[in-house]
Amino acid sequence: MSEKKSISVCFTADQFDKYADEKSIVVVVDLLRATTVISTAFMQGVKEIIPVQTLEDALAYKGKEGYIVAAERNAKPIDGFDYGNSPFHYINSDVDGKTLVLTTTNGTKAINNAKNHKVITASYINLDAVATYLIREYKDIIILCSGWKGVFNLEDPIFAGSLSTLLLSSGKYSSVCDSLFASTQLLKNAGDNLFDYLSESSHRRRLKSLNMEEDTRFCLSPPLKSDIIPILKGDRLVVL
Amino acid sequence: MSEKKSISVCFTADQFDKYADEKSIVVVVDLLRATTVISTAFMQGVKEIIPVQTLEDALAYKGKEGYIVAAERNAKPIDGFDYGNSPFHYINSDVDGKTLVLTTTNGTKAINNAKNHKVITASYINLDAVATYLIREYKDIIILCSGWKGVFNLEDPIFAGSLSTLLLSSGKYSSVCDSLFASTQLLKNAGDNLFDYLSESSHRRRLKSLNMEEDTRFCLSPPLKSDIIPILKGDRLVVL
Repeated sequence: MSEKKSISVCFTADQFDKYADEKSIVVVVDLLRATTVISTAFMQGVKEIIPVQTLEDALAYKGKEGYIVAAERNAKPIDGFDYGNSPFHYINSDVDGKTLVLTTTNGTKAINNAKNHKVITASYINLDAVATYLIREYKDIIILCSGWKGVFNLEDPIFAGSLSTLLLSSGKYSSVCDSLFASTQLLKNAGDNLFDYLSESSHRRRLKSLNMEEDTRFCLSPPLKSDIIPILKGDRLVVL
Repeated sequence: MSEKKSISVCFTADQFDKYADEKSIVVVVDLLRATTVISTAFMQGVKEIIPVQTLEDALAYKGKEGYIVAAERNAKPIDGFDYGNSPFHYINSDVDGKTLVLTTTNGTKAINNAKNHKVITASYINLDAVATYLIREYKDIIILCSGWKGVFNLEDPIFAGSLSTLLLSSGKYSSVCDSLFASTQLLKNAGDNLFDYLSESSHRRRLKSLNMEEDTRFCLSPPLKSDIIPILKGDRLVVL
């Protein structure tokens, strides 16, 4: 029996330095909605995605041939950008073959904070593919929840619970991480209906108040599945 | 019906700046073991407690008339100090009337980070008294979990769940905080046997490996109750 690899869960992008070890694979999650958008966009033929930190960085690409620029702040799209942070924006043939430049409140920050590691992104769209990939890679894993402006959110840990459960059931991983344990407990309590469970969530309330309930349903229970694993190469996410 | 006051839960001392508003009452929790020690020491007649950040700061008081100095790092007592971080150390008549100078891995840091607010400390020893006091005060509340070196732990949020449940049941408080929701969920899952539930906890494993199981039982289900509420005045905790 070979040694088991470890999994830990970091609850916010800002805390990543407490977990960083420069050798683990980092799985970034921003379920509502950045990493779901990333999965969707790649499925629709986007060639690569450049996550940037600021609106200014994103606007620098505006109007360039072959680029589309997308931005979200505080759950809302931003004037002057082609796209926002709704997965539905990307289900259109115009995105095929393009480079997407994306800046969001939390998800792109998490990706950036982890950039000294091997970084992939995950959502319920590519959950199974990500688990299969990680089990095959057999490396220590940090699941990096994006959180909300430095604060714990409910939906990213629940997804971390889903991914952890798959990884632990392989028998190749173990964990001594309290936040992983809490994530699996929250997932267990959520049961079969994430949407209702997350009615308690601050971000779902935020999206509800913005009439984005359909986005939430899409992210929690996507109508499509993908084998695509987005991986960070240099400054951009590409298909593994 | 007057407006409800808010409660939020911060999972680690390091994240407190995301919650700080300079007007909420901050309830610091380091269940295993600093805030349990603080409750115990006051019950045994300690006059005041000076939480300090460094071993050097604590040692400066060593040998001074009327002072006892206590230190813990990585769950272990430190050579050269009179006391450690076990509540049992304080159940002796020598502490009566003394000033306790205390430095611990996480709890004293949490107290220090919140010092621009009204700060009280809580444990299962004074839970009921703290809840009664807060309900009477009727102010916004931040429950500050000390965590473990900047990382989420399981036991402090579970205590936060216990305190939140009492506060919310008064009808005077509400919460939109995902970490409070998660705390109440973890408490619910723990059910009647915190000790067994926390067998999954990294810190209980740490204490177990150091043969401190009795400390853990004491902190989770203390054999004594107290109405004393420790409150920070200047650089020291005193009895409210």
